[in-house]
Amino acid sequence: MDAISRIERTLSASLERVNTKGGPPLLAAAMHHAVFPRGARIRPRLCLAVAAACGGDDPAAADGAAAAIELMHCASLVHDDMPCFDNADLRRGRPTVHRAYGEPLAVLAGDALIVLSFQTVVWNCAASPTRLGPLVDILAKSTGMPSGICAGQAWECEPTKDLGQYQREKTGALFAAATEAGAASAGVEAEPWRELGMRLGEAYQVADDIADVFAGQADIGKNIGQDAANGRPNAALAMGIQGAMRHLETLAEAAAASIPACPGQAQLQALTLSEARRLLPKDLSLTAA
Amino acid sequence: MDAISRIERTLSASLERVNTKGGPPLLAAAMHHAVFPRGARIRPRLCLAVAAACGGDDPAAADGAAAAIELMHCASLVHDDMPCFDNADLRRGRPTVHRAYGEPLAVLAGDALIVLSFQTVVWNCAASPTRLGPLVDILAKSTGMPSGICAGQAWECEPTKDLGQYQREKTGALFAAATEAGAASAGVEAEPWRELGMRLGEAYQVADDIADVFAGQADIGKNIGQDAANGRPNAALAMGIQGAMRHLETLAEAAAASIPACPGQAQLQALTLSEARRLLPKDLSLTAA
Repeated sequence: MDAISRIERTLSASLERVNTKGGPPLLAAAMHHAVFPRGARIRPRLCLAVAAACGGDDPAAADGAAAAIELMHCASLVHDDMPCFDNADLRRGRPTVHRAYGEPLAVLAGDALIVLSFQTVVWNCAASPTRLGPLVDILAKSTGMPSGICAGQAWECEPTKDLGQYQREKTGALFAAATEAGAASAGVEAEPWRELGMRLGEAYQVADDIADVFAGQADIGKNIGQDAANGRPNAALAMGIQGAMRHLETLAEAAAASIPACPGQAQLQALTLSEARRLLPKDLSLTAA
Repeated sequence: MDAISRIERTLSASLERVNTKGGPPLLAAAMHHAVFPRGARIRPRLCLAVAAACGGDDPAAADGAAAAIELMHCASLVHDDMPCFDNADLRRGRPTVHRAYGEPLAVLAGDALIVLSFQTVVWNCAASPTRLGPLVDILAKSTGMPSGICAGQAWECEPTKDLGQYQREKTGALFAAATEAGAASAGVEAEPWRELGMRLGEAYQVADDIADVFAGQADIGKNIGQDAANGRPNAALAMGIQGAMRHLETLAEAAAASIPACPGQAQLQALTLSEARRLLPKDLSLTAA
């Protein structure tokens, strides 16, 4: 079964397990709306790729870790889209959860997805109980204080905010969780895999910056020019398109070079470089390839 | 060390562990505001009492479970107080978190406390790793879908809501988590301890109903008459004060009778009856005692 099918199957199984037993139907619908239909699922695919490279001997644990990270990502999107943050109307071309279901259910859907994320790890770790502690800890560290996605979002509320730090923490945290959890799900020490996630998170951010500035050259399906309009730091504005693309290539090479010795090291290095190039808007990625 | 000291120490240790490493200071302050100064800590005290009655051989695991349940309770209060739910200005005589720190930090503080709750279990279960899975599962079940506190709160958003079910789920879920987690932290099967939590949750709700109606006879330090004003179900309005007090006594006796065989069974039965009477407003509890 390919990675996407495994991810979708695990996400569906988790949602069905909690949403078909007489719970409040609107909250169940709001949670489903937040998770399906799928986006790129880039974080859980990264998690599965690392687990496989580590010789993953427990595919269920890897599936659980990957789905847990995606559920946490979806929860953060639901809360970040709310009126008191980004006040976004659309997500993946559809109404955001608070637009479709109202603010109370958006708060609760985010909360319930955070909880479901932890449950998903427990449910899929039955064959490897000693891996549960490290996985819960990785998931929590990437989400809470002092440097998870909640902390990253909270820097927006600080009077002396460092927006660069804010972006690094928000994007890097879940990418690092993906690589660390992939390793931990395979029974391998997680810490050496952190750098790969942080580098790829930074590359993803640079690609997003490029798309925000140069989307006139490519159809990326969301509003552009938001960083310039909001005074947010943007690598493509700071370096120009060629500079930003070179920076992305450098980050991808550093990411590939950081991959620890493991059974699938060479294959994961090649995948890292090709996937990093695929992050660019289509017409730019053709140039870069 | 007495129960309250153990609880406060574990809560402080968890908050300090995440809030002193260069994270955003306002989010750290908002989380602290949500947890301290303490309320009655009734759920974590129940958790520790059950762990002790079960002959708890791992006090750290019990402390972690108790603090985790209190952190989840505090998280739910932060989100439930927000403008899109109860729009409450005061909690324990101080401004609610969103009044003191704004809505964005209230959303994030609730999220980060949910995450910290799971971390607290992991950190305190190091000596009993096989108890981690059951504890995370109990905590998640009592919080998420289909019958945790998020689900209970979400019934408020349903067009065909059953307010009685809503109250039972919200109050009962964390009381049941307290008794189940107390048992699980001691390495004992959790399910037989569920009924004690559910009965005590119901007793707590009845005592709250009595206070809401008869607080003119006692200083309980919060707004009264809210149920009648909002058309919410209230046992004391339905049964009268004598009927509601008899109902509470019956629930307390059923709770005590449900306690499974364990080393501290008799002591816990006596504690259950005396604590249930203490739930009443002071002048009423003197009558009942």
